[in-house]
Amino acid sequence: MKIVIMGCGRVGAQLAGLLDTDGHEITILDIDADNVDMLRRLGIKVFYGDASRYDLLYAAGAEKAKLIVLAIDDTDKTIEIVHTIRKHFPQLTIFARANGRADAYELLELGVKHVYRETFDTSLRAGIDVLHNLGHRSYQAHRSSHLFRKKDEADLRDLAAMRHDRKTYISTARQRIKDLEQILLAEIDRTGDHQDEGWDTASLIDEFGKNDPENIK
Amino acid sequence: MKIVIMGCGRVGAQLAGLLDTDGHEITILDIDADNVDMLRRLGIKVFYGDASRYDLLYAAGAEKAKLIVLAIDDTDKTIEIVHTIRKHFPQLTIFARANGRADAYELLELGVKHVYRETFDTSLRAGIDVLHNLGHRSYQAHRSSHLFRKKDEADLRDLAAMRHDRKTYISTARQRIKDLEQILLAEIDRTGDHQDEGWDTASLIDEFGKNDPENIK
Repeated sequence: MKIVIMGCGRVGAQLAGLLDTDGHEITILDIDADNVDMLRRLGIKVFYGDASRYDLLYAAGAEKAKLIVLAIDDTDKTIEIVHTIRKHFPQLTIFARANGRADAYELLELGVKHVYRETFDTSLRAGIDVLHNLGHRSYQAHRSSHLFRKKDEADLRDLAAMRHDRKTYISTARQRIKDLEQILLAEIDRTGDHQDEGWDTASLIDEFGKNDPENIK
Repeated sequence: MKIVIMGCGRVGAQLAGLLDTDGHEITILDIDADNVDMLRRLGIKVFYGDASRYDLLYAAGAEKAKLIVLAIDDTDKTIEIVHTIRKHFPQLTIFARANGRADAYELLELGVKHVYRETFDTSLRAGIDVLHNLGHRSYQAHRSSHLFRKKDEADLRDLAAMRHDRKTYISTARQRIKDLEQILLAEIDRTGDHQDEGWDTASLIDEFGKNDPENIK
C-alpha cells in the first residue's frame, strides 16, 4: 500500500521509520532543501517538493496512494496541501500534524479527521512516568492517561465547532475541564488510588491564549 | 507529594492536568508574563518566575519537593535551571522536555535521566493509527511501536556519549538503524504480519543535521 509522507523532520522521520518496517511503499517529500540534501547523503530517499503543488503530489505517486501524512511544521502550508489534495486526490486519507490546539481546530474545521497535536502524547507519557516515579501503580497511571486523552480528544472536536463564539467557547471549555476532573477522580475512587481536593485541570486551557478569538490571526 | 512544574505551555499544562488528579501538590511557574496572566484569569494558579533563580525556586517550594518537571520550550534555559537545581536542591528528581535529539543529548550529558523529546510519542501514535487505518492488526502496530521506542530510547542514550566524535557517531548511528530494522522485521516475521524489503529506518537520523557536530552550536 502506497503512503506519501510530506515532511521529514522530527515527526515525519520517526513515523517513516516505524511505517517502513510494515511493508508499505513510502514516498517522502520535504520542502526544506538542506534537509533533503542531508537525508539523501545519509541514504534516505527523500524528494524535494512542495506537496501543495498538484504536479509534485502527482509525481510522488499520490494518485496511487491510499494515505498521506502531512508532517510539516507549518499549519498554513498544511492547509494549502489539504486543499490541493481535496481537489485532485480526494481518495487520500489525510493524517495531519498540528502544532497545538488552535491549529488542530483549524484542521478539524476543514474536515481533516486524523489530527495530531505534536506534543500531546509526550506530555502524557512524561506524566505517567512522573506518577510511577512517585510510587503510583502502573496500571492506574496508564488508565488515567488513557481516560485523559480520550476525553481531551473528544472535547477538542466538540470545541472546534464553537471556537469562534468566544463566550460559548470559554464557558463550555470550563465545564469540560470540570467534567474531566470528575471522571478522573471517580475513576481513582473506584480503583482505590489516592486523591485530593484537586486543582483546575489545565488540559483544555493549555492554549487558550492562542484560541481566544481575539488572538487568532 | 510536592511537584514543581516549570513552564505551562503545550507540554506543562497537559502534564499538570494529568498529575493534578492524582493527589499531588503542584506548583507551576511560567516565565512568560502574558501566559501567566491569561492562565490566572482562567483560575489556574500559576506563578511568574524564572526557575533558574534560587530564590524563585525556593519560593515555589523546591526545598520540600521531590520532583521538578522542566516543561519549557528553551533548552538553554532548561540547562541553566538544571545547574541551579543541582547546586541548591540536589534532592529533586528532574524530568525535562527536549525539543529533539540534539537537545536530548545535551540534557543526558548533564546527567538528566528523564528526558522527553517533545514530538516523539505523538509521531509513534500517528504511526500506529496509520497502520490501523491500512488494516494492520492493532496488537502488531502497538508492539512495533513499543519496540521502536524502546530501542530508540536506548540508542539515544548510547549515542549521546559519542556525539562529539563525528565519524564514530555517524557509523554507530547507521549500525543502530540497521539493528533496529532487523529487530522489527524479525518481530514481524515471528508474529506473521507481512513484511517487505525495507527502507532505511529513519528513526535515528531524524535530526542528524542538528546533531552533526559541525552544526551544533
